[in-house]
Formats: sequence, C-alpha cells, structure tokens
Amino acid sequence: MTSDKGLLIVLSGPSGVGKGTVRKAIFDDPDTAFKYSISMTTRRQREGEVDGVDYFFKTKEEFESLIEQDKFIEYAEYVGNYYGTPIDYVKETMEKGYDVFLEIEVEGAKQVREKFPEALFIFLAPPDLTQLEERLIGRGTDSMEVIRHRIREAKRELNLMNLYDYVVINEDVQQAKRRVQCIVEASHMKRERVESKLRKLLLEVNN
Amino acid sequence: MTSDKGLLIVLSGPSGVGKGTVRKAIFDDPDTAFKYSISMTTRRQREGEVDGVDYFFKTKEEFESLIEQDKFIEYAEYVGNYYGTPIDYVKETMEKGYDVFLEIEVEGAKQVREKFPEALFIFLAPPDLTQLEERLIGRGTDSMEVIRHRIREAKRELNLMNLYDYVVINEDVQQAKRRVQCIVEASHMKRERVESKLRKLLLEVNN
Repeated sequence: MTSDKGLLIVLSGPSGVGKGTVRKAIFDDPDTAFKYSISMTTRRQREGEVDGVDYFFKTKEEFESLIEQDKFIEYAEYVGNYYGTPIDYVKETMEKGYDVFLEIEVEGAKQVREKFPEALFIFLAPPDLTQLEERLIGRGTDSMEVIRHRIREAKRELNLMNLYDYVVINEDVQQAKRRVQCIVEASHMKRERVESKLRKLLLEVNN
Repeated sequence: MTSDKGLLIVLSGPSGVGKGTVRKAIFDDPDTAFKYSISMTTRRQREGEVDGVDYFFKTKEEFESLIEQDKFIEYAEYVGNYYGTPIDYVKETMEKGYDVFLEIEVEGAKQVREKFPEALFIFLAPPDLTQLEERLIGRGTDSMEVIRHRIREAKRELNLMNLYDYVVINEDVQQAKRRVQCIVEASHMKRERVESKLRKLLLEVNN
C-alpha cells in the first residue's frame, strides 16, 4: 500500500466537557489506529507518571528555548507551568502516514488552526446543549433565572465552536468515542484524499 | 427534539460495482435510519415484485406526463423502459427530518447534483482501484496488455468520481455498508449543521 500523509485530529471543547475521558476511551480501544501526541510540560512529574508516556517533562529553560526555536504547534502557561505540543513528533508521525491526535484546550486549538488549517477540528460539546429545548420549553420547571443562564451559556458555546469542522455532543463516553472514530474514518474517504492518492499511484506507474 | 431537514444521500458508481448489494445490506441493518427512495419504472412488474415496495409501476403515458410536470429528480431510459426517482417522496421525507437514500446510476447522479447540490454524493469504487499498485508494480506477473488496460480503467473511474464527496472502496459488503453509515453519521455532526440547528433552537426560545 502507498502510505499517504496522516491526518491531524484536534479534539477540543470547553473545560470540564470530558475531553480527557473521551481521549482515554479512544486510546483504550485496540481498533484505534491514531497516534497520540504526548504533551510537553514544565510541571513536576507526579508519582506514577512516566516521562515520554504521560508527558515529556522539561525544565523551564528547555521549554523556553524550544519556544524560541518555534518547536511547538501550540503552547500555553497554566498556573506558572508551560504545557505544549511539540511540532516535530506531529510532523514526523504524519509523514509516516499515521493520524496524529491532539486533545487540547480551546486556546491551543486556535493556534493549531493557524499552523495546520487542513487539520480535522472536532468540538466536544456538553449534552446540555441538546437538552436546551426540553429544559427551556419543556415542562416549565425552570425559573427564568436558570433559563437566562442556559441561553447565555449556549450562546457562548456556539461562538466557541465556530472554528471547528465537526461537533460531537458528549452524551455518553463510548458513543462520543465512536463518533470521533467515525469522523476520522469518513475524512479518509473524502474524494479529494482518495483521488490524490490514486493519481499519485497512476503517475508512479506511468513513470 | 427539534426535527431538522434530513440529508439526501446518493450512492452511485460504475455499473457492476455492487451498488445494489451494498444498498440491500444497508436496509437489512435495523440500525439504518435512512429512508429508501423507491424508483418508478415503466418496465413490467415481475413475479414476486410488489408495487410501492420494489418499484412504483407506471405506464409509459403516466411516466411521460410526470416528466413533463418535472416530477423527477432524475430519470433515464434503459432498453426501452423508463426508470426515475420521483421528487415528491424525496422532498416530503426530507422535510420530515429523515435522511433519504438513493442508489442510482452515474448518469442519474449527475442530474441529482444539479437539483440538490447540497446532497451527499458517495462513489462506490471497485476494489481493483486499490489493488492497482500490487497488481502493477507487484510481482511482475501481469502482461503489459493487462497493465495498460488497468491504467485506462483506473483513469476512467477517477474521472467519474469527480463530482462526488466521498469514495468508498467496495472490498467487502459489510465494511462498505458500515462506511456509508459512518459518512452519513459524520455529516450529521458537521459544525454548520449542528450550529444552525442550535441557533434555530435559541431563536425559538428567545421569541
């Protein structure tokens, strides 16, 4: 088989939506063929954590030197520590034909969009969003206060999802996992992708 | 739940590729939620065929009158008989929020593209296309004659798939079925679709 460049898959969404849980379900599934891009951090290695498995642990100086060398797709500082996605692993793994999976914050996803506009951006949304109607119009059990709060939240989330290609509602972890896998599978079947692969094949044969 | 307009799904591909078999596998699956659009024809009803199940059987005069009234999404004449997809069923079913599935010839798919450019066009391709490399470069067992023929065929098929959104290689019926279902599922999660549905919901609530 001709190996073609892998996809870059970005899973993001509001904090607390369950990105990490869905990511774990994806990588616990032996059918998953994506590669997980391990983040780099300057925070202390916790007991049980393995360098190069959970994170790449770096000193602040090492991390800042890598920032200067433009070695991150995205990075951010939280509570005095850096967290980032090293670009080399992502590029090399994609070149080998593997799909690379990032599970990152909304802010980081924006940075990735600038460097890899062709990546697959999946927004994980809270189930509340679909329960809106039931909750609001439903049985009139919610106070106006609650309703107003829900509408504000929903609008904020709608604005966040603007840069994404797909929206997965996280109603159930296994279902969300399957949906992400399905989006990736469908992306591999996009005509432009299949076509360019086949054209390359024909060119090789003709030469 | 707010019902939103269903998708129009068009499965097509070169004749002999197995469109009908894949379509049957899709509708034998109790999980399939699409509605199958039954074709209309002027050919004789065969034993065991049920009007309104296998086809809508019409006289030539009835069919031609419907053509004049622009009542087909697509139609064609084969061996002296008309075959076509009635537009009313498709529109009404989509309005109710159901996905409608058409399994039609490449020529018909072109006509559908003109009337429903937003439909989901899936090209079912023969597995030979992916076996190209093995066959051609592989073990040198094929004669130049066979190789040249394969390349011509592959080019013809590449040109055919030009108008489609997705390409499914029909290596195995159950796999092809699952892939089509996955493409449809992913299409329902496209951000524009989810977003517009949610925006409508919010508007309703605000009014």
